[in-house]
Amino acid sequence: MRHATAIAGRYCGALAVCAAIALCALYVARPTAAQDRPRTDTVANASNASPIYGVTIPPGYRDWKMIAVDELVIGKLDQLRAQLGNDIAIEAIKNGKLPFPDGAIIAALHWDRVPSEDNNKVLDGPFPGAQSFVVGSAANVQFMVKDSKKYAATGGWGFADFKDGKPGDEALHQACFPCHQPAKAHDYVFARFAPAP
Amino acid sequence: MRHATAIAGRYCGALAVCAAIALCALYVARPTAAQDRPRTDTVANASNASPIYGVTIPPGYRDWKMIAVDELVIGKLDQLRAQLGNDIAIEAIKNGKLPFPDGAIIAALHWDRVPSEDNNKVLDGPFPGAQSFVVGSAANVQFMVKDSKKYAATGGWGFADFKDGKPGDEALHQACFPCHQPAKAHDYVFARFAPAP
Repeated sequence: MRHATAIAGRYCGALAVCAAIALCALYVARPTAAQDRPRTDTVANASNASPIYGVTIPPGYRDWKMIAVDELVIGKLDQLRAQLGNDIAIEAIKNGKLPFPDGAIIAALHWDRVPSEDNNKVLDGPFPGAQSFVVGSAANVQFMVKDSKKYAATGGWGFADFKDGKPGDEALHQACFPCHQPAKAHDYVFARFAPAP
Repeated sequence: MRHATAIAGRYCGALAVCAAIALCALYVARPTAAQDRPRTDTVANASNASPIYGVTIPPGYRDWKMIAVDELVIGKLDQLRAQLGNDIAIEAIKNGKLPFPDGAIIAALHWDRVPSEDNNKVLDGPFPGAQSFVVGSAANVQFMVKDSKKYAATGGWGFADFKDGKPGDEALHQACFPCHQPAKAHDYVFARFAPAP
């Protein structure tokens, strides 16, 4: 049985990102419209695609450009997070061109936040009590893929959540769009482009 | 007079990143070897290059690929941070090919960590007490540029710290290399490549 905080972490991970499946047929395993989605995720899981939306992991997403970083704390869950975007998503969010065009994909990468003893040893001399936290184990990764026609029923976005390369279940994915609705004014995307210092 | 925590934040920012100036003449304003460095930073500041090392802000660094993210807490200072790398740096750190080759550049972007009231409102329903922290104001950005000949006296790396586009003073930059020496076994770079979830 999945631990409650793990569910919370995956569910709320969607807060940091939003991507609707657009024309990215390459990344969509099944050409199923949201309104025609199957009521079981068996087939989707078998193909490593997310239930409801049929989104698979976009090859090379780890190399995408960075949108922003954040931290989420829910009880004992404490994560460092980063949102990356493909070129279409970056172009849109960087320049405030909303809604995101079809083809935009946003990835939300989540890791456990852990103290760095190595860094703290170095810091302790000049800055006693300083604390460095770095990324620990990878928790999960989520995607929002924009396709304004295919995902018309969910704001133009298709959602996906993966842990260890496997998509979460249908119940998890049913929570994605409702969670993102408060961000409707920003095309359902919570993340903002972090300024260059 | 610069506030102590600001100094701490810029000094310790180096913990999260390390890049030695290599063959990136494009990004190095002055062809001055570390051992021949000027004793005043007036000229360097006038040219927007870092004192001692003569490193300027690499154009387009905000679009580089992400190495990792972290958080640093020193007293009231609390920052969310990200390290990005140019293609040479990413290729090396991603595949564990150390030392970094000449031409590698690593950027460390630092922002104030601030609570997101918008996110917390959304979270509060399903997860009472949950806390979301996002990037606030940009604090500073640091660079490590690898040039094993030019910067032979400092582990092959040249360092730079900028706030609002202006380099910090010489005293600040004198702290860079000593701070990174504990990471010698990882070619003076503290950051590790964050795994793809």
